[in-house]
Amino acid sequence: MVRYLGKPWYVGIWEGQDYLSNLERTQEDVKLIINAARDLERKFKAKVPTPYLQGQTLFMFFYNRSLRTRNSFEAGMSQLGGHAHFLSPQDVYTPTLPEDMEAYKTEAIGDVARVLSRYGNAIAIRIYADAAKWHIGRGHRVIEEFAKWASIPVLNMEDDVFHPFQSLADVKAALDVVPNLRGKKFVVSYAYSGGLKPLAVPQDVAIMAAMMGAEVWIAHPPGFELMENVMEAVRGLADRYGGSVRVTSDMKEAFEGATFVYPKAWSPKAFFPPFSADGKVHKEEAVEYQSRFRNWIVTRELLEEAGRPYYMHCGPADRGQEVTDEVLDTYEKSLYFEEAENRLHVQKAVMSMVMGSRYE
Amino acid sequence: MVRYLGKPWYVGIWEGQDYLSNLERTQEDVKLIINAARDLERKFKAKVPTPYLQGQTLFMFFYNRSLRTRNSFEAGMSQLGGHAHFLSPQDVYTPTLPEDMEAYKTEAIGDVARVLSRYGNAIAIRIYADAAKWHIGRGHRVIEEFAKWASIPVLNMEDDVFHPFQSLADVKAALDVVPNLRGKKFVVSYAYSGGLKPLAVPQDVAIMAAMMGAEVWIAHPPGFELMENVMEAVRGLADRYGGSVRVTSDMKEAFEGATFVYPKAWSPKAFFPPFSADGKVHKEEAVEYQSRFRNWIVTRELLEEAGRPYYMHCGPADRGQEVTDEVLDTYEKSLYFEEAENRLHVQKAVMSMVMGSRYE
Amino acid sequence: MVRYLGKPWYVGIWEGQDYLSNLERTQEDVKLIINAARDLERKFKAKVPTPYLQGQTLFMFFYNRSLRTRNSFEAGMSQLGGHAHFLSPQDVYTPTLPEDMEAYKTEAIGDVARVLSRYGNAIAIRIYADAAKWHIGRGHRVIEEFAKWASIPVLNMEDDVFHPFQSLADVKAALDVVPNLRGKKFVVSYAYSGGLKPLAVPQDVAIMAAMMGAEVWIAHPPGFELMENVMEAVRGLADRYGGSVRVTSDMKEAFEGATFVYPKAWSPKAFFPPFSADGKVHKEEAVEYQSRFRNWIVTRELLEEAGRPYYMHCGPADRGQEVTDEVLDTYEKSLYFEEAENRLHVQKAVMSMVMGSRYE
Repeated sequence: MVRYLGKPWYVGIWEGQDYLSNLERTQEDVKLIINAARDLERKFKAKVPTPYLQGQTLFMFFYNRSLRTRNSFEAGMSQLGGHAHFLSPQDVYTPTLPEDMEAYKTEAIGDVARVLSRYGNAIAIRIYADAAKWHIGRGHRVIEEFAKWASIPVLNMEDDVFHPFQSLADVKAALDVVPNLRGKKFVVSYAYSGGLKPLAVPQDVAIMAAMMGAEVWIAHPPGFELMENVMEAVRGLADRYGGSVRVTSDMKEAFEGATFVYPKAWSPKAFFPPFSADGKVHKEEAVEYQSRFRNWIVTRELLEEAGRPYYMHCGPADRGQEVTDEVLDTYEKSLYFEEAENRLHVQKAVMSMVMGSRYE
Repeated sequence: MVRYLGKPWYVGIWEGQDYLSNLERTQEDVKLIINAARDLERKFKAKVPTPYLQGQTLFMFFYNRSLRTRNSFEAGMSQLGGHAHFLSPQDVYTPTLPEDMEAYKTEAIGDVARVLSRYGNAIAIRIYADAAKWHIGRGHRVIEEFAKWASIPVLNMEDDVFHPFQSLADVKAALDVVPNLRGKKFVVSYAYSGGLKPLAVPQDVAIMAAMMGAEVWIAHPPGFELMENVMEAVRGLADRYGGSVRVTSDMKEAFEGATFVYPKAWSPKAFFPPFSADGKVHKEEAVEYQSRFRNWIVTRELLEEAGRPYYMHCGPADRGQEVTDEVLDTYEKSLYFEEAENRLHVQKAVMSMVMGSRYE
Repeated sequence: MVRYLGKPWYVGIWEGQDYLSNLERTQEDVKLIINAARDLERKFKAKVPTPYLQGQTLFMFFYNRSLRTRNSFEAGMSQLGGHAHFLSPQDVYTPTLPEDMEAYKTEAIGDVARVLSRYGNAIAIRIYADAAKWHIGRGHRVIEEFAKWASIPVLNMEDDVFHPFQSLADVKAALDVVPNLRGKKFVVSYAYSGGLKPLAVPQDVAIMAAMMGAEVWIAHPPGFELMENVMEAVRGLADRYGGSVRVTSDMKEAFEGATFVYPKAWSPKAFFPPFSADGKVHKEEAVEYQSRFRNWIVTRELLEEAGRPYYMHCGPADRGQEVTDEVLDTYEKSLYFEEAENRLHVQKAVMSMVMGSRYE
C-alpha cells in the first residue's frame, strides 16, 4: 500500500469521521481496522514509536466511571504522540441535552461541542445508566447531539445502546485465535449479576459477530430481549454476510459446540423507558426480577461440557455472579485479558484513521 | 524580527514574569500578545508544530469548575510540547491563605508555591465566589500569595476581580473583525442571570476596551457598579489611550449605534464584603435583588434596533436569561465561539512569552 | 561508564523491577540511585531534554490525597518524555483486595493489574490510613497484591509501612550537604500533630539512615514505638553498614549534637490493629492519647540549643504543631524544600532504571 510521508496506510483514511456505532460500518471497514490495530500492536510490543497524532488532543467525557476505557484511550493518545483530557462531569459545566438543562451547572452540548472543536482534535463520550436517567437510548442521543454540533470526530466510548470499540476489540481477540468466524458458533449469552448493566455490550457484540458471518446465538431468560431495531440490524447483517441468528432461553443448549461464548449481564429492558408500560424507571423491580436468574453463571463444568469454547467477557466481570473465579483465573481458553488489551490497539487504529491526516 | 535558534520572536521575551492582571500591561504589550497569538493560530490551523515549551509543566489549580479555561490551557500546553496538571482542591491538600488554614486538609500557599516551583515551569489558578468565600478581592489575594512565593510564573485563570486571559481573547476577537478600536463604541453591559457571577469579566473587558482606545460604555442597573479602583483605572486608560468612559443605567441607550456589545451577568456588589454595610455575605438577598432585572436580556430585536453591533460573551451564557437561544445560535454578528477559540491562542502566546527561553 | 545508544548508564539497568521498599535494596543500590538523580537534576536545571521514557505511561492510583507525590511523579514522567495517568478511586472501579470486594464498585486488584500491564509501563500506588482501613500493613498488602499480578514495575508512592521515595529524596538532600553520613548523628523524632499520620515516613527514614551508616537515634514518647520487624531491619542495617541505633523518649537528649533531625508526627500504633488489644481501630482514643505530647514541637530555640542541626521534614508540616512557622520560613539549616525537590530527581532516577530499556 501507498505510504504518505512515512505514515502507514491507515493514518487519516477516514479523516474527520465520527465513530458512533458499528452499524455505520461494513465488514470491509472492520477488517481495515483490525489490520491497522495489528500494525499498531506489533509496533507497541517492539517499542517502535507511532507519533501519528503528534500534538493532538482528545477530550474524554466520562459520565460513568471506567478503568479499561479511560486508561486505554489516554495511554493510546500518549503512544500516538498526543494527549487526552480526562473530564468528569463535576469538573466542568456538565454538557447536557436541551431538555435537561439546569442553570449554572450544565452547558448545552451544542455549545460545548463547538467550543472544544476549536481547541483540539476529537471528543469521546461515555454515558449510560443513571447518567442517562435509565431512559434507554438517551445516552446515545447525547452522543448524537455532540456529533451534530462538533466539527471534529466524535467517538462513542459506550452509551446505552452501543459499545463499538469493545466489540471491535472482542472481534480482534476472536480473530487472533480463529482466523475466520464464518460458520463458527458465537454465543452472546446473559449471565447473572446483581448490578444493572446496559445493553450496549451484548448488542454490539451480536452486531459484530453477525458482521463477521458467524452463526450467532443469543441466549437469555425471558424479559432480557435485546432492542428490536438492533435485532433487525443483526439479522440483516447475518443475511448480508452469510451467517445466521438464533435466539434461545437455554444457556446450556446455546453453549453446546460453540467456538466462542460471551456470557455477560445486562438489564431486563421492560423495566425501563421507553419499554416500560408506564414509561417510568423501575430499578428495584428490575433487580428483583433478575435475581431469579442466579443460575445463569459460567463455571468450568459448563464450559467443559459444552466442548471447551473460548470464554469472552468485556470486563469487569462480576466474580461469583456472572462467572466463577476459577474460570477467570485458570480457564485455558479465556480471552478475558486479550479482549481488554485489544481495546488499546483498535482504539489507536480508529483514532489514527479519523484524527490523522494523510498529508502533513 | 530576530529569531533565537529557530524560535519565533515572542518565545521567552517576558521570561519569568507573572500574568495576574492586564493593569500591569500596556497597549503595546497587548499588541505583542495579539501578534504572537495570531502566529500561533496560523500554525495551529496549518498543523505546524510549535514545541516552544518542550518538556515543560504547568500546574493548574481549579477551585472552581471550568470548561473553556481548563481545556484551552491543557490543550495549549500539549500543543506547545509540554503538559498541564489538572489539580482540584479535593485531590491535593488545598493551598490556602494563612488565615484560612484547616489542619490536615490545607497547606500554606507559600509552601505549595515553593514546592511546585521546584518541579515545573508555571502555576495557574482559578478562584472566585464560594471558593473565595464571596469576600470580593480574597480570590485575587490568593493568586497574589502564590505569586509572592513562587519562583516560576503565576497565571491568573480568573479570580474575583480580574480575568485577564478572557479579555485578551475578547479583544483579539474584536480586532479580528475591526482592526482598530479607537473611536468605536464598546458596550460592557449587565444582563440578567439567576446565578451569582463574579465581577471579573466585565471589569477586565472594560480595562481592555479602554486600553485599546475605544469609547467605553458601561451599562447596568443601580447596585451593579464595578469596583471603584477598577473604574479609576479604566478612566486612566481611556485618558492615556485616547478613548472615553461613560456609565448609564439604560441598556437600550448604551446599545444604540455600538460597534460591540458585551452583555453579561455579574453580582450586585453591595451584598458582599468588603462592600456590604455589615461586612457579611448576603447571597440570597443578592439573588432576590437581581431578580428585578430580568428584562436585561439580549434579543435579536434589541440588536437589530441598535444597528446590529457585534455580540460578545465570554461563555457559558445563560440561555433564556442573559440572551435568547436565537441570538447565540443564529445571530450573524455573534463572536461567541471566536472569543472562546481565542482563549487558546492568547494563552499559548502568553505562556510562550513567560515560560519560554530565548536561548536553549 | 558505558552508554547504550546515547542513553545514560542508569536507563534500564533494573528493567522490569518493582520498587516497593528500600529493604529490598543495598547501600550500593541507593548510591546508584543518587548518582542517577544528580545527573537528572543537572539536566533538568540546564534544560537538557531527558526523553528516556518516550511514549511510556505510568498509572498512578491515589487512594489518598497528595501534592508532592502526585506532582513530582506526573511532572517527572513528562520530563522523561512519557505521561502519567492520575487515577482516583471514585473515577475507576476501585482496585481492591479479594476480602474487601464490593460488587459493582470495586474490581479485583489482580484484574486491574493484569489489564493495565497490557496498556502501559508501570503502576504506582499510594494507600494508607482510612483508605487501608487503619489496619496497619493492609496498605502495604494492597501494593504487594498489585506487584503479584502486574507484569510491569509497581512503585510504592507511600503505604502504611514504607515511603521509599521519600526517604531516598531525604537521603539525597542530606548527602548534598554532608557527603558521608557514616558516624553522623541522625535523629528520627516524633513531633506532635493533632492528625493521625502513618508510620511510613519515620520507618523508611530510619531504614535509610541506617543503610547509610549513620548513628541513628529514634526519639518518641511511650506508645509511639515503630513496628518491631522494621526496627529489627534497622538494627541489621546498622550492623551491616557500620552505624548504630538508639531509642530514647527524650527529644532534647536526642537532638543534642545531632547533624540531622527529622521530627515528624506519626500515630501511636497500639490503638490500631494488628497491634490493638482487641484488634479494633481506636482513632478517637489515639487522638486523645497523642494530645498529651503537644510539647514535642520543634522551635528555633530547641535547634539552637542542640547545636544547629539540619532540620528535615517530608512535608506538609503541620505548622504550629510539629514545628513553628519561624523554623520553616527562616531557619537557615532547613532542608524542607530541598527534600521536596529531591522527590522529583530520585523518582525520575528510579523510573528511568526500572521502566527504561538498555537497548532501543
